[in-house]
Amino acid sequence: MRIVHVPLGIRSYDIQIGAGLLAGLGKACARLALGKSCVIISDSNVAPRYAKVAHQALAETGFKAALITVPAGETAKSLKSVRACYHGLVARRLERNGFIIALGGGVVGDLAGFVAATYLRGVAFVQVPTTLLAQVDSSVGGKVGVNLKAGKNLVGAFYQPRLVLCDLDTLATLPLREYRAGLAEVIKYGIICDAGLFRKLERVVPKLLEGDLTTLAGIVSRCCQDKVEVVRQDETESGLRAILNFGHTIGHALEVISHYGRYLHGEAIAIGQVAAARLSAQVMGLPQRDLQRMINLFERAGLPTEVKLNSSQRRKLLAAMRLDKKVTDGETRFVLACRIGEVVTGQSVPSWLIERIIKSGNDSVK
Amino acid sequence: MRIVHVPLGIRSYDIQIGAGLLAGLGKACARLALGKSCVIISDSNVAPRYAKVAHQALAETGFKAALITVPAGETAKSLKSVRACYHGLVARRLERNGFIIALGGGVVGDLAGFVAATYLRGVAFVQVPTTLLAQVDSSVGGKVGVNLKAGKNLVGAFYQPRLVLCDLDTLATLPLREYRAGLAEVIKYGIICDAGLFRKLERVVPKLLEGDLTTLAGIVSRCCQDKVEVVRQDETESGLRAILNFGHTIGHALEVISHYGRYLHGEAIAIGQVAAARLSAQVMGLPQRDLQRMINLFERAGLPTEVKLNSSQRRKLLAAMRLDKKVTDGETRFVLACRIGEVVTGQSVPSWLIERIIKSGNDSVK
Repeated sequence: MRIVHVPLGIRSYDIQIGAGLLAGLGKACARLALGKSCVIISDSNVAPRYAKVAHQALAETGFKAALITVPAGETAKSLKSVRACYHGLVARRLERNGFIIALGGGVVGDLAGFVAATYLRGVAFVQVPTTLLAQVDSSVGGKVGVNLKAGKNLVGAFYQPRLVLCDLDTLATLPLREYRAGLAEVIKYGIICDAGLFRKLERVVPKLLEGDLTTLAGIVSRCCQDKVEVVRQDETESGLRAILNFGHTIGHALEVISHYGRYLHGEAIAIGQVAAARLSAQVMGLPQRDLQRMINLFERAGLPTEVKLNSSQRRKLLAAMRLDKKVTDGETRFVLACRIGEVVTGQSVPSWLIERIIKSGNDSVK
Repeated sequence: MRIVHVPLGIRSYDIQIGAGLLAGLGKACARLALGKSCVIISDSNVAPRYAKVAHQALAETGFKAALITVPAGETAKSLKSVRACYHGLVARRLERNGFIIALGGGVVGDLAGFVAATYLRGVAFVQVPTTLLAQVDSSVGGKVGVNLKAGKNLVGAFYQPRLVLCDLDTLATLPLREYRAGLAEVIKYGIICDAGLFRKLERVVPKLLEGDLTTLAGIVSRCCQDKVEVVRQDETESGLRAILNFGHTIGHALEVISHYGRYLHGEAIAIGQVAAARLSAQVMGLPQRDLQRMINLFERAGLPTEVKLNSSQRRKLLAAMRLDKKVTDGETRFVLACRIGEVVTGQSVPSWLIERIIKSGNDSVK
């Protein structure tokens, strides 16, 4: 088992990474001095597969665990689900000294984390991410929240878990498409702050796609370490943390205009990252060679790198970007890359250029 | 103008208390280095009276202020209102560097504060409490939240405002019944931690009921000071802060079973405090003389001190108490008084005794 420590003062916690960890969930929770009652929040895909193991592990160490299941998919990241969870917690009589376990992917983690942050003004919570995306990104760093119709993550909080337990075995049952979507966030760390990781990914992508456990353990913990380093310096996104949004402005807008239906988050931000890289080539002088390496790596990971939009969809995309919560004084700000491993935040880009970049996505990149 | 400073590290802020402060709202906000856009959240009683003055004060100092109005009354403290506010903020394009102003009583402050704590993962907020209860209690200390059908304040957060501006002039237009309800929280400070205040109240209750501004300024700032002293030592209610819940366990349950319709919050907690004092006389040896002084003071303030319940209502009351978020390990814990000015927290009381105390409320106290 690898452990990545998240040093945030009294909100510090550990990320455990390894195979077969789920069976040790109870023991891991027992070390945290939490109350004896907990509620597992999971979704209709993950619960049938893993809730029983989790429940048994908790029961063996004396915890009383109940289960709330939400529908699978991004649409569950809504105020409606939040309300359903609150009522579920009331019905299961979770008290202030109880805790919530998020068992599932990014949607479950973000939803359950927001519920934990706000139920009874905050109860403890534990993340058990079961997708690659959640293990390397959404379960780390304390951003929790849900979507509004108008945009992604418009409602939320910064609320740190007490423990993150990444069982790599759970990735084996992940549909290949979702697994690949997770690689979009993995590649992101390479682009924004870790050129060494990017080079390593160029070598090990085939092994990752086979689900090789040793390779996975190394990559997941390195991504967590990269994210922790950023979050440690800027927990509530007043500055540096914004680099984690690379590719997310266009990516989120794409999710919004397709009503979270067509693209997985990872796919949308793969497209968003390539678009941001193209903007970077125009505005920041990102070398064409670096741009091409990025596109190649996303493609080798089986991810989309462009999107075909008609003019009405393009207009909607630009409008959705203007509603993004990263907008300041009415202007959309971008994270742009100088080279692989280095980005800058807060860059304003003229909208005609954004439009051109999205248009040029129709053609192949030369 | 009196100023009570709330020392909470980087979350520190001032409470300003005085007559005619609303006209200076813009200047006060300008000193806080906030963004230029804000949204005032108010209710259908308060907005027609004060939103214009607030808006003008903000506009004069260069702020762009929009208004969201929610229905007046405790029923607005709901998830439904939270959702409506989110959509209102999206429609008014409030950005992350914008801020929210809560203009109204406790309901508006708790609702707007929760919206501020969670919209875009938190935007700055300013409290402008316009009721006595909000000025001495709910606007101070950072507890924000809304009710579920199952209980009061079951959803919420700890989120400190950047400024609290108590304009005593706004109390002049408060219905007498609401003003008196505020006195229930004022008297509470005397009971839980400030015997000197209690004695002072015994002297000045007539002046307070006349709305004498000098007396009011002294009392409001002393209550704020008392609350700040408690919150400073225990911001997130892990211990001491629980003393502020004196009278609230029975009081909240009473509000729940009457669907927030029959009693104002202050009235419910006046009844709750007298019930808690009666329990204290039985369990903690609270002197009968102190019990009688409490009852007298509540009565002189024009507040109810007992409730007539039939056996079905009594059962519902006890059930509602068991759902209170202060329940630990299935047991309802009480704040009980040793004497006027001193209470202890975490006291368990057998339910037959609670039932007897509530029953005895049918008779007059001898």
